Amino acid sequence: MYMINWTESVHHDGSPLYVEVAEQRLGATATLRLRAALDAPLTAVYLRSCPDGEQTIVPMEPAGADSVCRWWRIELPLRMLSTGYRFLLRTLHSGNLWYNAAGLVPHYPTDTNDFKLLADYHAPAWLEGAVFYQIFPDRFADGDPTNNVRDGQYVYMGKSVVARQWGEMPRREHSSGEFFGGDLQGITQRLDYLADLGVNAIYLNPIFTAPSNHKYDVADYATIDPHLGGEAALVALREALTARGMRLILDIVPNHCGATHPWFVAAQADPAAPTAEFFTFRRHPDEYESWLGVDTLPKLDYRSERLRELMYAGENAIMRHWLRPPYAIDGWRIDVANMLGRQGPLNLGHKIGRGIRRAIKAEQPEAYLLGEHFFDGTPHLQGQELDASMNYQGFTFPVWRWLAGFELASVQDRPWADVLPMSTEDMVAQWQAFRAAIPWQIVTQQFNLLGSHDTARLRSLLGGDLRLVRIAVALLLTYPGVPCIYYGDELGLEGLVDPDCRRCMEWDPTTWNHELRAFFQQLIRLRRTSLALRRGGFQVLYAGGHTVAYQREVAEERLIIVARRADDGLKSLPVRHAGVPDGAFAYDLLGETETRVEAGSLPLTGLPAVGVMVWSIT
Amino acid sequence: MYMINWTESVHHDGSPLYVEVAEQRLGATATLRLRAALDAPLTAVYLRSCPDGEQTIVPMEPAGADSVCRWWRIELPLRMLSTGYRFLLRTLHSGNLWYNAAGLVPHYPTDTNDFKLLADYHAPAWLEGAVFYQIFPDRFADGDPTNNVRDGQYVYMGKSVVARQWGEMPRREHSSGEFFGGDLQGITQRLDYLADLGVNAIYLNPIFTAPSNHKYDVADYATIDPHLGGEAALVALREALTARGMRLILDIVPNHCGATHPWFVAAQADPAAPTAEFFTFRRHPDEYESWLGVDTLPKLDYRSERLRELMYAGENAIMRHWLRPPYAIDGWRIDVANMLGRQGPLNLGHKIGRGIRRAIKAEQPEAYLLGEHFFDGTPHLQGQELDASMNYQGFTFPVWRWLAGFELASVQDRPWADVLPMSTEDMVAQWQAFRAAIPWQIVTQQFNLLGSHDTARLRSLLGGDLRLVRIAVALLLTYPGVPCIYYGDELGLEGLVDPDCRRCMEWDPTTWNHELRAFFQQLIRLRRTSLALRRGGFQVLYAGGHTVAYQREVAEERLIIVARRADDGLKSLPVRHAGVPDGAFAYDLLGETETRVEAGSLPLTGLPAVGVMVWSIT
Repeated sequence: MYMINWTESVHHDGSPLYVEVAEQRLGATATLRLRAALDAPLTAVYLRSCPDGEQTIVPMEPAGADSVCRWWRIELPLRMLSTGYRFLLRTLHSGNLWYNAAGLVPHYPTDTNDFKLLADYHAPAWLEGAVFYQIFPDRFADGDPTNNVRDGQYVYMGKSVVARQWGEMPRREHSSGEFFGGDLQGITQRLDYLADLGVNAIYLNPIFTAPSNHKYDVADYATIDPHLGGEAALVALREALTARGMRLILDIVPNHCGATHPWFVAAQADPAAPTAEFFTFRRHPDEYESWLGVDTLPKLDYRSERLRELMYAGENAIMRHWLRPPYAIDGWRIDVANMLGRQGPLNLGHKIGRGIRRAIKAEQPEAYLLGEHFFDGTPHLQGQELDASMNYQGFTFPVWRWLAGFELASVQDRPWADVLPMSTEDMVAQWQAFRAAIPWQIVTQQFNLLGSHDTARLRSLLGGDLRLVRIAVALLLTYPGVPCIYYGDELGLEGLVDPDCRRCMEWDPTTWNHELRAFFQQLIRLRRTSLALRRGGFQVLYAGGHTVAYQREVAEERLIIVARRADDGLKSLPVRHAGVPDGAFAYDLLGETETRVEAGSLPLTGLPAVGVMVWSIT
Repeated sequence: MYMINWTESVHHDGSPLYVEVAEQRLGATATLRLRAALDAPLTAVYLRSCPDGEQTIVPMEPAGADSVCRWWRIELPLRMLSTGYRFLLRTLHSGNLWYNAAGLVPHYPTDTNDFKLLADYHAPAWLEGAVFYQIFPDRFADGDPTNNVRDGQYVYMGKSVVARQWGEMPRREHSSGEFFGGDLQGITQRLDYLADLGVNAIYLNPIFTAPSNHKYDVADYATIDPHLGGEAALVALREALTARGMRLILDIVPNHCGATHPWFVAAQADPAAPTAEFFTFRRHPDEYESWLGVDTLPKLDYRSERLRELMYAGENAIMRHWLRPPYAIDGWRIDVANMLGRQGPLNLGHKIGRGIRRAIKAEQPEAYLLGEHFFDGTPHLQGQELDASMNYQGFTFPVWRWLAGFELASVQDRPWADVLPMSTEDMVAQWQAFRAAIPWQIVTQQFNLLGSHDTARLRSLLGGDLRLVRIAVALLLTYPGVPCIYYGDELGLEGLVDPDCRRCMEWDPTTWNHELRAFFQQLIRLRRTSLALRRGGFQVLYAGGHTVAYQREVAEERLIIVARRADDGLKSLPVRHAGVPDGAFAYDLLGETETRVEAGSLPLTGLPAVGVMVWSIT
């Protein structure tokens, strides 16, 4: 049997079993708890925090024990907007150990990975039960063919636009100038389908008026593109969603606009134009800052107070406008949030980030503020700016590398991309590194995904191996955070990098992979109804060979997820360090296998060589 | 023979061998180099940076090889005030590895430990050769007995002050109200002694007018305490120091003042007083914010713009005034910088930190800005605020724990203090954690110490074992950063915690430990003259058992420091991974042993069971 060191039993996170606080307000007091194995050689446990920059270390009180574990507790006053803390463990024979969100450290660590508890931070409560579905509007459903872009209707980047037949393959040669006719009406008409799948929130790629099919080249932030149905179609969609209790977030591009936006047209025509200060001309009119040097996407310059007013700060700013009825969207996905407000030596990123939060939360406290961050977004995820980022580095990329055996970048022909599989230990370490850097509250709001309009599709990345796809889906829907499904992944849609990943949705049920869709439905239902998945703690129980296992836990429910990418001979899973006593009854919610915990371990009866189980433990 | 993994040979830091840049200005281009063993299984090396928040990964060029190692190089434009970067290593059989300032990571890391290169940052150039000497003025030398505090001269905290005889033991019962008569004249008179020791910079504990002996309870920031000699004595000291090419920094307490300061007296007398806004009264006049709740030290409230003007920002602000002739001090040590500008939920710490830097550097670009940080000061050490912190966590505490076998806190009767020795691996890991979090430029400026007025003395902590003291001194003077010697440590002065560590300096040479003093002199001379110690890179070569070894290296000079706290049987030190070829000649600068490198290793001929060597390798 695999032996677990007692150190693996030490656990704390920000979930209700470990942090109890009536209201996360300044002046409130939180009760913190820490758990360890009954036989862990701990002689005392202390809490270390740093109010006003000065360290305090206070002893925790013993707070009960059962047949496998014991608890300590202490009260922590919330005196700062973000209270960092960590634990000091005194051991019988091995000296002191620090325990922070990155694990146990034998030496004094920096504060970077301290647990962090936010106060006076408004969390969108509806995220707890949310399962998102991402839609690329031109490719989901054509609800009104009369508004379709017609072949040659206008010129985009020097070429006539092209109207394509639904279901044809997207073509790279005019990927952004070809249109399939999808629109908001189509989405409204397909809400039965989405409700049946089980999702309850939609994230739409941009829908503001813009010449391209992706619409990241905004020409008017104040109107919905008429080819997508215009404002009326958005209002109708909103009403239909509200009737079903579904949420909607839109995609906005505050970093840059399209070169056809009147702000830029005027600025380029006249250096004295009122909007000239919205842009950075190195030499007027043709040399200016743009997104990654792409001329059609001039970068917006947030040194301009007028721009800040128009975009988010003013009474009727763009980002406020769409939060109001009749549109009443539930939040924003902010495109390239990593670049926003940054121009070489000038980094207004944090200032703009805080400003956007203040404005949006003043308008609608329940709005979800999600930022695109392909790299390390954690500096923007400390409670003062974004509610969440697209969690590529903290979830998606490690899962892909673990299952696919190579990096996404390798299908993008990056010469540096890794083409060897990631070890299970490394996947878990990357998950932890990105969780440890941010408050638990933000961890539970992180936007987890298995693919998007910017990546290859999951099924294609995994070489069509649906056993691996199912593992990925189960991880997505059981990992802390807000899961999002990219349209069509539930049917087994394929596609490599852009624009191949933006193929048309398939509406002929005879072509669907019904078994896969049923698996998605099952996991989505579980994610929405299980308290442990909605708000439970997260403890990795095992990461070795080809198997990863973790526990999600609240007082009322305990789930253990076990995923195996290849046969590694593991016959049983150690679970005593998770607080599970011998004799506990276990049944697999996916396969309905039953067993009991024996000698500290859960027999992995029924786990296929490549597969996943979600054990309910009672 | 101990085997070194090839991964240990991968090296880069901010020293001239690895980073070459004519001037660290925005718009400049740096040349970066990376070294690895000749046989390291690397197929390519890439540089990863994130200009404007967007990742770029570019291949490095091979840049030569010799019999033991090879090099890669690349140019990096400095487009931001702080450019973070790390390396991506492609290996033959183990996939990709990231290499950042914290070492090799098999998964994608957060940016926290990226190498960081500053631009438009003014470094005080004189720090490179500086060796500091810290003086607690009342206890160093009594140059003018006529200015001494007289027995019962005034009342301090309800008791008459006490005049003590030079050389008596400080007494805890009125530790801050007893005086031994030391003054600035005494320091001026003893500069021959300091020059003979070899130090070339002085850090003085507070000398502004204040009733206590430690003078952290400032009553007047604009005058020098008359019992220390007043302003005239400071001018005389400055002139004498300048004549010898010596530097001087003073200790200022911007976080709080003494309750006898006229600002506070007026504020307490009248809530409408102009200075009332400098303080935070919870209930006027008796309940107010103070330093750790000590009533005699009311906390200053930097929400007050007038206070900011008076303290640092205004044309004639206190922190500017003393930088000007005739005082012309060379910098400030900022007391409790960790608490400055913080009051519960309000954290103005970074704003005040940036403001102080702007003001001080505008006044005197070469001024050294040093902050007290007993805990994690790295957020203030990113190039926008402090030049350095007192490096307790990054150097002092791990060295103590490694040599003494217990934490300082244990002599302060903290129940949580560790009383087991720190492993060599953990000491090196703590060093690295605190180096990795800050730019190399700041690493080289960090104020390293082996004790201060706030701690027990080194010799006493080490139980009087002078072999261990010598190891600590050698580490201090060979580690990257600016070394500081606490007055009297060079003579073997003893003393536990405050006030015992503030005993009078011993001026009778017959009581001195001449051998210890000679060792200090030898190391100080070496530190001041060796290019490798002044500006060299830092690579840990070995950390295991009871032995630590590291290399300091520039193109012109290579030193290898080996320290052993107890016999561990290590007979030879692997050095090939440091770029040292077989046959290299090695001699110990401390003991004059000679040998040659053989089969990748340096024979540790002459290293005692407990001792230290500084090998020069040619």
